[in-house]
Amino acid sequence: MISTEELSLEKEVVDFINWLSKFGENKNGGVTRLLYTKEWIEAQNALKDLIEGKGFDAYFDEVGNLFARLNGSTYTNETILTGSHIDTVVDGGKYDGQLGIVGGIIAMEYLRDKYGQPLRNIEVVSMAEEEGSRFPFAFWGSKNIIGSVEKETMKGLKDSNGLEFVEEMHKAGFDFKDENYKGRDDIKAFIELHVEQGGVLEIEQKSIGIAEHIVGQKRFTIEINGQSNHAGTTPMGYRKDALHGTSKMIHGIMDKAIEYGDPLVATVGSIEVEPNTVNVVPGKVIFTLDMRHICKKTLGKFADEVETIIKDIASIMDLETKIEKWMDCDPTAMNKELVNIMKTKFDEKGLNYKLMHSGAGHDSQIFAKVLPTVLLFVPSHKGISHSHEEYTEPKDLVEGIKALIQALYCLAYK
Amino acid sequence: MISTEELSLEKEVVDFINWLSKFGENKNGGVTRLLYTKEWIEAQNALKDLIEGKGFDAYFDEVGNLFARLNGSTYTNETILTGSHIDTVVDGGKYDGQLGIVGGIIAMEYLRDKYGQPLRNIEVVSMAEEEGSRFPFAFWGSKNIIGSVEKETMKGLKDSNGLEFVEEMHKAGFDFKDENYKGRDDIKAFIELHVEQGGVLEIEQKSIGIAEHIVGQKRFTIEINGQSNHAGTTPMGYRKDALHGTSKMIHGIMDKAIEYGDPLVATVGSIEVEPNTVNVVPGKVIFTLDMRHICKKTLGKFADEVETIIKDIASIMDLETKIEKWMDCDPTAMNKELVNIMKTKFDEKGLNYKLMHSGAGHDSQIFAKVLPTVLLFVPSHKGISHSHEEYTEPKDLVEGIKALIQALYCLAYK
Repeated sequence: MISTEELSLEKEVVDFINWLSKFGENKNGGVTRLLYTKEWIEAQNALKDLIEGKGFDAYFDEVGNLFARLNGSTYTNETILTGSHIDTVVDGGKYDGQLGIVGGIIAMEYLRDKYGQPLRNIEVVSMAEEEGSRFPFAFWGSKNIIGSVEKETMKGLKDSNGLEFVEEMHKAGFDFKDENYKGRDDIKAFIELHVEQGGVLEIEQKSIGIAEHIVGQKRFTIEINGQSNHAGTTPMGYRKDALHGTSKMIHGIMDKAIEYGDPLVATVGSIEVEPNTVNVVPGKVIFTLDMRHICKKTLGKFADEVETIIKDIASIMDLETKIEKWMDCDPTAMNKELVNIMKTKFDEKGLNYKLMHSGAGHDSQIFAKVLPTVLLFVPSHKGISHSHEEYTEPKDLVEGIKALIQALYCLAYK
Repeated sequence: MISTEELSLEKEVVDFINWLSKFGENKNGGVTRLLYTKEWIEAQNALKDLIEGKGFDAYFDEVGNLFARLNGSTYTNETILTGSHIDTVVDGGKYDGQLGIVGGIIAMEYLRDKYGQPLRNIEVVSMAEEEGSRFPFAFWGSKNIIGSVEKETMKGLKDSNGLEFVEEMHKAGFDFKDENYKGRDDIKAFIELHVEQGGVLEIEQKSIGIAEHIVGQKRFTIEINGQSNHAGTTPMGYRKDALHGTSKMIHGIMDKAIEYGDPLVATVGSIEVEPNTVNVVPGKVIFTLDMRHICKKTLGKFADEVETIIKDIASIMDLETKIEKWMDCDPTAMNKELVNIMKTKFDEKGLNYKLMHSGAGHDSQIFAKVLPTVLLFVPSHKGISHSHEEYTEPKDLVEGIKALIQALYCLAYK
């Protein structure tokens, strides 16, 4: 068992994150660093120099994932990988993605300086892309590492300025992986340190979360058609009020979600009403529904029950419905053995952690398909993320890195 | 008792309405004729020529209300007034307002040709303005006739192009009435023929409605503040979902409105959500609420109960509310004696009428404050109004005019 109590990394972590945030920093303190843009290239190159300056090997793969490597002494074909993504959403925060890279480098450096060469290789990856915020494709970095990208899918993808994905990749100096590439077989585990992007850890006063699952997710667009009418001259009994119907539906869906209990979440985030005028009974409503759960079967059952709620209310109120499902991702379980190892170590070290799930998508769900993966969280202040207001207290950043050090130590040094 | 069975006015009415609609007609067949615009001036002048061509006196008052007059033989200081407004909303229909003018002229002509000079004067007014669709002021025409406009209120009013009300009035050749004008004292009754702008007569297969009341109306803007959160990472129990709260409120308000029963109507016509994104729990909702009833006390009681519903739900869901009332008009009763005279006459003539209320505002509510007033409706197909799709079947237009002839006959010839 190693000791980390003596660590006082707050300044180092905060300085490192602030330094990396300069690449693509907005006036409000947020970061906009989209795949293969100037800011992105500068950040990856600066990071490569920094890694080399610390005495580690640094290399890009074909697509632009940057790796920092500490060679192992004994199991030279076995690599423990950590890291996260370097890209951001537009006006994103300083912690989403970056923390996993910064934390990985600090942890690897600490372990090398304190315990020398590990038995297995340790690598920290600064992944090219996760957010899908420039091109309509997410997890480009992690999907390339495990070899699950099909070239054809990427051709023709354009950003909002009409620039082509393939050309932009070439201009940045990168290219597709070889068609025969099937993913690295040396990676024995992936550990991702990330901000929670929710408020659970803060509310429950925990410093670290161990995700056991990443939720599955379904998204729908639901159209309700009634009839627009004069608000004064149409008696209640003669109305086909699409918003009244929608209100009953949302009320019913939310009650059902609460009845299911955690970890089910359901959100009606967006609503549009026509004609949307004070004195006209709404004739049409379009709303979105996002639902997530860690169990595929439960999520499917909930979706079926929601459809029944919507159709029953529509039928009673003489409204017409169109339900379009446009996203359907299965839940992903993290590796049970790794989760148990983390639990045992964190218990031994008295770390203040919580077993939980991730309600948001992460690179970990890509890796988990093919290799043992675990996802660690630190708190997000007020649960804010994808915003320049994203914030994690320095003491929590350090707690997260300490947890990562424990994890890497027990996977690479033992 | 006069006979109107021999009338076959369909072509005359339809031609007259189509002729008048040419002034400001849109490509889609709708009419845009805003106060003191070129189209408005042309329509009023053409109407004046037409009235004079039929052998009636025609004159404008100071503000641009146009009157057609048939002098009475006996009670020369007593005038029975009918008519409606010449202005429209943007892309309005052919019947709203126009029908009352066209119907009045046809009725007056029919009565003169068939029964000669009445005992009392009959006047038909083409009122300058009712809709409030150019300047933020409604009932300019009728308010001037009864002398209830204060000059100061009008100064500084601008249209959406920044043009000043007073200047536009002057440019059109009109001006304020004399400050000492207190309204005409010769008008003994006002009868308005108008399209229903609702679907009740059509659904109930009635040709004519006699409005006993014009509803009172309150309008509110209600702001609900919760907290925006990530849709995936925020458990249901940790949310302050402004749209979930709003849905419960709308559901509760509508249930309460239905429980009150006719003639109460309540409408949430407009809603805005922030940030209005599929994967974010809504932090803020602003919605409008319009409520109407013929009884002031009942409307007030309903408004109080709605406020309780909103505040109770907000309290349970930890949401904040701001309720702003920005319109509060009292109901107006039509003249009971006139309503009874209409009923008796229509019964005698076997007209297919319904006693009802008006859920929309009309010039009649201005006249009703100072003199005996009654409002007659004909059906609006599908209840559509304020749209180029507004339509009333020619046979119903004729039924309405026959009813107006009966009304004018018994008020002016007896």
